[in-house]
Amino acid sequence: MVQNSRNLSSPIRRGMVFIISAPSGAGKTTIRSLLLRRNPRLAFSVSHTTRPPRPGEKNGKDYHFVSREEFLKLIRRRFFLEWAEIHGELYGTGRPALEKLLSSGKDVLVEVDFQGQAEIKKFLPEAVSIFIIPESPAELKKRLRKRGTEKKTELLARLEWAKVELSKAKYYDYLVVNKERKIISAVHQIEAIITAEHCREKKVRGLISFQS
Amino acid sequence: MVQNSRNLSSPIRRGMVFIISAPSGAGKTTIRSLLLRRNPRLAFSVSHTTRPPRPGEKNGKDYHFVSREEFLKLIRRRFFLEWAEIHGELYGTGRPALEKLLSSGKDVLVEVDFQGQAEIKKFLPEAVSIFIIPESPAELKKRLRKRGTEKKTELLARLEWAKVELSKAKYYDYLVVNKERKIISAVHQIEAIITAEHCREKKVRGLISFQS
Repeated sequence: MVQNSRNLSSPIRRGMVFIISAPSGAGKTTIRSLLLRRNPRLAFSVSHTTRPPRPGEKNGKDYHFVSREEFLKLIRRRFFLEWAEIHGELYGTGRPALEKLLSSGKDVLVEVDFQGQAEIKKFLPEAVSIFIIPESPAELKKRLRKRGTEKKTELLARLEWAKVELSKAKYYDYLVVNKERKIISAVHQIEAIITAEHCREKKVRGLISFQS
Repeated sequence: MVQNSRNLSSPIRRGMVFIISAPSGAGKTTIRSLLLRRNPRLAFSVSHTTRPPRPGEKNGKDYHFVSREEFLKLIRRRFFLEWAEIHGELYGTGRPALEKLLSSGKDVLVEVDFQGQAEIKKFLPEAVSIFIIPESPAELKKRLRKRGTEKKTELLARLEWAKVELSKAKYYDYLVVNKERKIISAVHQIEAIITAEHCREKKVRGLISFQS
């Protein structure tokens, strides 16, 4: 009966995938770096892209920067869990690195848009999806203004776009509200989601442990 | 459009119900008092019972101790969200106190067995259920021994009963493993579940806020 009882406390449990999406201006990048710094068990899935690196971006850390030819070769090899063309550039989540992280027991953050999220859920229905939004439309407006979106028409267009993005929030498992002066609270919420989801996942192993 | 935007950060959000069940020897009572001490937003739903108080138990704190006659009167008045007869005594969760706590924004812990959990879920499908188990069958055995269950036949009977209890774990939303020397870790897990579930619940309000 005690056969599998070590499972529950074993440090080499398999990791889980946490998908993060957010409209621009929601503070996703800051949240991500705080999460990674605070949680050694958490890793970031570095995407492949054909777009050129921006100043400061490091190959292998922010993205794997590859040529279009190379990317297409990877697609043919079924290298990607999901890939998409956005504004003429290709972006994809590599399968082998993700698999390696998960087997080593790491939880993996994957940052994708709504489309990417849907693709991943198709192949990994156990992946957990989190949508980050700013505190309120007023807050979003303020942030977009801060970024220099001064023209009224442009601002309205961006808000309109944000509304479209936000209408997809209902397809995610969780909604995390990022308050500007309390970014750490959004970080805590995502950490809580990770802990809670392991308590869901444990159900299966828990039963194995006690019923054998 | 900004009409409901204060909802997301409003301190008077409605509370949620968290149902806790556990086989004896899982450490439920200690976990409960730690949770209540650490979380002022969390309240305990005090049940009604016809069984006499045990030494140290306080009326209104541990239970509302009532006569059988009184209890039956309350049943007829549809006072209870759920009630059950266990070993000849009646136990029930009162509806008005629970409702009052929820409206005031408190999250409410309700301790019931499997049957009670199923009843509550029928009327409050949004209630979140958590099953607490000890670390392993070996650990459970050790705890039952510590409690003075020395006779081998009795020990085996209790373990058999625990297995039956544990087979119901799969009907709960979450499984929390209580490790003897790390009881605080079980407390943290339940706190994480509460935070995460508010992130699920927020989805609805989040959409109202941004789409109006």
